[in-house]
Amino acid sequence: MKKIFVVGLGPGELNQATGRALEALENSDIIVGYTVYIDLIKEHFQHKKLLSTAMKKEAERCMLAVKEAQEGQVVSMICSGDAGVYGMAGLMFEVAEAEGLLDELDIEIIPGITAACSGAAVLGAPLMHDFAVISLSDLLTPWELIEKRLEAAAFADFSICIYNPSSIKRHDYLQKACDILLKHRSPDNVAGFVQNIGREGEQGIVMDLQTLRNTKVDMFTTVFIGTSQTKNINGKMITPRGYHLSGGSNE
Amino acid sequence: MKKIFVVGLGPGELNQATGRALEALENSDIIVGYTVYIDLIKEHFQHKKLLSTAMKKEAERCMLAVKEAQEGQVVSMICSGDAGVYGMAGLMFEVAEAEGLLDELDIEIIPGITAACSGAAVLGAPLMHDFAVISLSDLLTPWELIEKRLEAAAFADFSICIYNPSSIKRHDYLQKACDILLKHRSPDNVAGFVQNIGREGEQGIVMDLQTLRNTKVDMFTTVFIGTSQTKNINGKMITPRGYHLSGGSNE
Repeated sequence: MKKIFVVGLGPGELNQATGRALEALENSDIIVGYTVYIDLIKEHFQHKKLLSTAMKKEAERCMLAVKEAQEGQVVSMICSGDAGVYGMAGLMFEVAEAEGLLDELDIEIIPGITAACSGAAVLGAPLMHDFAVISLSDLLTPWELIEKRLEAAAFADFSICIYNPSSIKRHDYLQKACDILLKHRSPDNVAGFVQNIGREGEQGIVMDLQTLRNTKVDMFTTVFIGTSQTKNINGKMITPRGYHLSGGSNE
Repeated sequence: MKKIFVVGLGPGELNQATGRALEALENSDIIVGYTVYIDLIKEHFQHKKLLSTAMKKEAERCMLAVKEAQEGQVVSMICSGDAGVYGMAGLMFEVAEAEGLLDELDIEIIPGITAACSGAAVLGAPLMHDFAVISLSDLLTPWELIEKRLEAAAFADFSICIYNPSSIKRHDYLQKACDILLKHRSPDNVAGFVQNIGREGEQGIVMDLQTLRNTKVDMFTTVFIGTSQTKNINGKMITPRGYHLSGGSNE
């Protein structure tokens, strides 16, 4: 059976990857990825054939991996974070299916630490209870659906983690998102964000939702909104694991 | 500054932990955890002082860690999965605050692979797009709030990952949850579950939501419900990363 690993490396440096992820790279002949991620691993995997492609060429990158695997090479496709969360895992299956090669290929997904988890760790413990992960990128998703998800998550008192909160073209999207959340949440609902998770310049800031609404963040930022129960304890964002049932209704 | 690491080990074997997690254990004098997790690491960390406590004694375990740290020991508290997702991270801050020790203690959270990510990898790629994580345990959460979150997540077409789908006392909770989801989703919405993630007997099964409703799962199971767009491709559960805008409305 021809083999492709789709490997999540976690955030930043290689010590944030699992042993299993590094074993997969070690057991591969070829490692394929976006240039920035290949740069990250190349020092440790110089003895492998390394292939990089530009950003936004995801389908081409998967085709490249499939083609090499067909020729008998064991291939690892690398992603930052988790391969299965806004990563390459699904597209790899879709490309293999479109090529009629699903029966010939053993595609193994190796999970990594996604930004919801690595960013949460920087801020304290914002995701201790039920949570929703929402991307504000409307490149592949209608904005109306993003709005619907934001509103549903706010209404049902989820902790919310926001990926892709901003870009040059979408500079006001976080503000628009906060305005939707503020329909169901108090302006002093605890919120926060983390920049450059796991890399130089890593910084987490805890604030309230109203302040977040009036803050500009860049594209290397992951945003967190707590539940109505989340507390700011000494600058850490802590969502209690349990609702305090003794104190009556919490909604 | 006195130091406590709260460390997520990921699922199952230690090769699912990150290098950073293992470094924290190596840099600790004492490792504290639930008996099962201490058993998992004891072979590799025999040279450390290992302290285990029974299940459901989470606050006591945190107190033990705080007490040892106060005496100058570097302490690691270990959890399976991610320390920040239904784990010990938040409680450690809360216990330290209650003891008035937050200023003296440096509590560092080290993320691990949570079951949403490790289970998704077994099934294929169910969480490629926006998703919600919901626990069915009503030990610390009113069931009405769990229902509200299930309904909101179903309505807004999130992928949904369900933790704690069943226990001896809660044998029909998954069925009740599926009935709520079926208010907004088709019976043939793709769903699946994974048992024993990362351990002996690991098994993932993909099915439809109606079949899931009529299936009994045990407490070592993580359940996944796709979006309306999720496909069953050769027994793998694949959520497309993008909504197909060319084909008109997808809702």
